[in-house]
Amino acid sequence: MDKKNIPRKGLPENAKLVFKGVIFEVWQWEQKMFDGTNATFEKVWRFPTVEIIATVGDKILFEKQTQPDRDETVNLVSGRGDEGETPLESAKRELLEETGYISDNWNLILEHQMGTKVLHDIYYYVAKDCRKIQEPNLDAGEKIETKLITFEELIDLSQNPRFWVASQFVNILTEARYDEKKKENLRKSIFEE
Amino acid sequence: MDKKNIPRKGLPENAKLVFKGVIFEVWQWEQKMFDGTNATFEKVWRFPTVEIIATVGDKILFEKQTQPDRDETVNLVSGRGDEGETPLESAKRELLEETGYISDNWNLILEHQMGTKVLHDIYYYVAKDCRKIQEPNLDAGEKIETKLITFEELIDLSQNPRFWVASQFVNILTEARYDEKKKENLRKSIFEE
Repeated sequence: MDKKNIPRKGLPENAKLVFKGVIFEVWQWEQKMFDGTNATFEKVWRFPTVEIIATVGDKILFEKQTQPDRDETVNLVSGRGDEGETPLESAKRELLEETGYISDNWNLILEHQMGTKVLHDIYYYVAKDCRKIQEPNLDAGEKIETKLITFEELIDLSQNPRFWVASQFVNILTEARYDEKKKENLRKSIFEE
Repeated sequence: MDKKNIPRKGLPENAKLVFKGVIFEVWQWEQKMFDGTNATFEKVWRFPTVEIIATVGDKILFEKQTQPDRDETVNLVSGRGDEGETPLESAKRELLEETGYISDNWNLILEHQMGTKVLHDIYYYVAKDCRKIQEPNLDAGEKIETKLITFEELIDLSQNPRFWVASQFVNILTEARYDEKKKENLRKSIFEE
């Protein structure tokens, strides 16, 4: 694999690519079982997602989005990493394309992989003190309306079923909703650090 | 598709199967975009998972599990639906295979789909007043040790990173950890209803 490619993390050395689609790859390998027999194991690899908590003063940039195959959702600025990009490069590109904003102050605050069978890395960045330098440049498959929300509104999104984000992140918001100390730590990681 | 097959929920009518693996299928279709052009859209479909909250008196059956390609995890009794089974049939089969227990009192308490790009249905059943009728019958790819835990221990699992369950369910436990009313409702849905 070209070294510029995004690393296919979570696959064993002997895994082979058996299908390459538009956004998914299927990998298989022979796995030795506990009784000494072999079985074909299979995982799906998916291009990483970047989620951006972009601040403007004491507010956070937020999107109402419609895509051709689903109803309206609300979400953070987010997108898919492309081959040859680092996650930070993907995050900067997505912020600029979707909102027209840039930031000089980026921090990775969380990363996780969705599961073991579906390998899907998600990177959460805080982009502080964003400023608008151009109009958004949207794909034919995106209708996005941008707005600013407060930190309290972000926390409350954990109860909104139209909020489109991995439930690992919802869980962080849920804990912040109940636990003042966790809430203050989250607020600091977004606005201060 | 054979009508005995598990329904491939969440795919449009014109989706075509482009790859069939061991546990994943990749489906594609032409999607009309907002500007009238077409693009190839892609989703992965995965066989459903059943999760079973199996009670024995005031305790819950729980597993410590090792699989050939990963470290030890703790989990509810759970497994993958096979073609031709309903989710309830899968749940009964998995409970018997993994633990040797059966129940005459099954309730579906939650179902959710993991995402939009990866279509993966998860069904959560309560199996009340389980009784052991035989020894477990494990696959070559499973090492499972069964134990009984209390409801309080189940709630606390939301903080255990080795607890292997969808984070949607972790979120329910997290809410029950902080909110007495939600906790009592969860307890009732497991032990009383």
